[in-house]
Amino acid sequence: MGAAGPIDLTYSFDEQSVYWPTETGFHHWYEHHGRFGGAGHFYAAGKFYAPEHGGTHMDAPLHFAERGASADQVFLGCCIGPACVVDFEERAERDPDAMLAVSDIERHEREYGPLPAGAILVARSGWGKFWPDKKRYLGTDRWRDVEHLRFPGYSPEAVSFLLRERSVAALAIDTASLDPGNATDFPVHRLWLGAGRPGFENLANVGAIPPRGAVLYCIPMKIAGGTGAPARVFALVP
Amino acid sequence: MGAAGPIDLTYSFDEQSVYWPTETGFHHWYEHHGRFGGAGHFYAAGKFYAPEHGGTHMDAPLHFAERGASADQVFLGCCIGPACVVDFEERAERDPDAMLAVSDIERHEREYGPLPAGAILVARSGWGKFWPDKKRYLGTDRWRDVEHLRFPGYSPEAVSFLLRERSVAALAIDTASLDPGNATDFPVHRLWLGAGRPGFENLANVGAIPPRGAVLYCIPMKIAGGTGAPARVFALVP
Ligand SMILES: [Zn+2]
Ligand SMILES: [Zn+2]
Repeated sequence: MGAAGPIDLTYSFDEQSVYWPTETGFHHWYEHHGRFGGAGHFYAAGKFYAPEHGGTHMDAPLHFAERGASADQVFLGCCIGPACVVDFEERAERDPDAMLAVSDIERHEREYGPLPAGAILVARSGWGKFWPDKKRYLGTDRWRDVEHLRFPGYSPEAVSFLLRERSVAALAIDTASLDPGNATDFPVHRLWLGAGRPGFENLANVGAIPPRGAVLYCIPMKIAGGTGAPARVFALVP
Repeated sequence: MGAAGPIDLTYSFDEQSVYWPTETGFHHWYEHHGRFGGAGHFYAAGKFYAPEHGGTHMDAPLHFAERGASADQVFLGCCIGPACVVDFEERAERDPDAMLAVSDIERHEREYGPLPAGAILVARSGWGKFWPDKKRYLGTDRWRDVEHLRFPGYSPEAVSFLLRERSVAALAIDTASLDPGNATDFPVHRLWLGAGRPGFENLANVGAIPPRGAVLYCIPMKIAGGTGAPARVFALVP
């Protein structure tokens, strides 16, 4: 394990968890919470309900690719790899429609060397500072209001470049979607998931990991047939 | 990452997933699955409902300890550690009420050396061969029939011994509960969770990991206030 222990990059699932405006949210309730049974000892147990896509979670290829792998079929080996954190926070601060571009990757590589095979790319927009304020994090807090979604994402050009020129295992981001909020046809989802690779959205606390050197674990719940799944994302820094 | 890639020790969550006889099961459904939007591309998304305790999952201390840590509060560092697989399969095969005993741990230590600090102990009863046949795996397939639960577990003496004499981070088992099925007051849960440590139940495929040498990752979903949570359990063998 990393010298300092795991760095948790996951938001807790609770009633405040941010979901897409068309999704109902996360619900957890206790079935029992108190004294129990003959011996009268304490016992508590609960249940929960959740859409697949919300909070810190995985997009499985099946989300946008009819013959793509479902959540349970995504190879765990693709969910673990060297973290490469590409920062475009300065641009995102000035422009909520900012997209991580090929030039951001090239700048990162000039500083830290080529993206290693099997890397997990983390797009760092700084959007975590708005969580869980939906109005600021998503651009809207109104039910079904997909028209006013505004937050940073990957550019389709950057993702095409990665598919063509690099061997990245997974993409991750600290916003609600790999595509920016103002995207309408989800070109990044279609390119990346269509290529059979997983994406991880709503990462927390990405400012806590270095640009290189951490190993990232993006570990999804094993939902049979899932198009996505809650994920526990953490980093170990050797 | 392990040379051979991660060894997945998790059952998929589906309608067959085994839950306690008093629990309803896991349900997943698609909200959308097909052509979508103006461009007519494929899109699929789902939702799910699950009790905390069933399938491959974590018991958080809060499950049996009123002031214990909830699922989101369990330190991830306690969920990752060197796997020590203690085999009592031969005895379990003859006796479904078999309990992993102090003598099993002592035999394991004579062969492989002392349990290292931070170890995750895996009780290997061989019960995975019955999954998901509830009648054989739990002893009963009847709703609310807790009286006929029969499967192996830890003995309270072994767990007291571990708490007193060793520094184990977590307990795991390839049956539905740390306590054997015929336990009534859950002494093992009360001892272990009461000491503030997590347990992991319904591990799959434990025959695939060596008695020593693997690093075990028992990674729970981060449910705020959860008394337990679905977990993705896997091993890396260096
Ligand atoms: Zn998603
Ligand atoms: Zn449990």
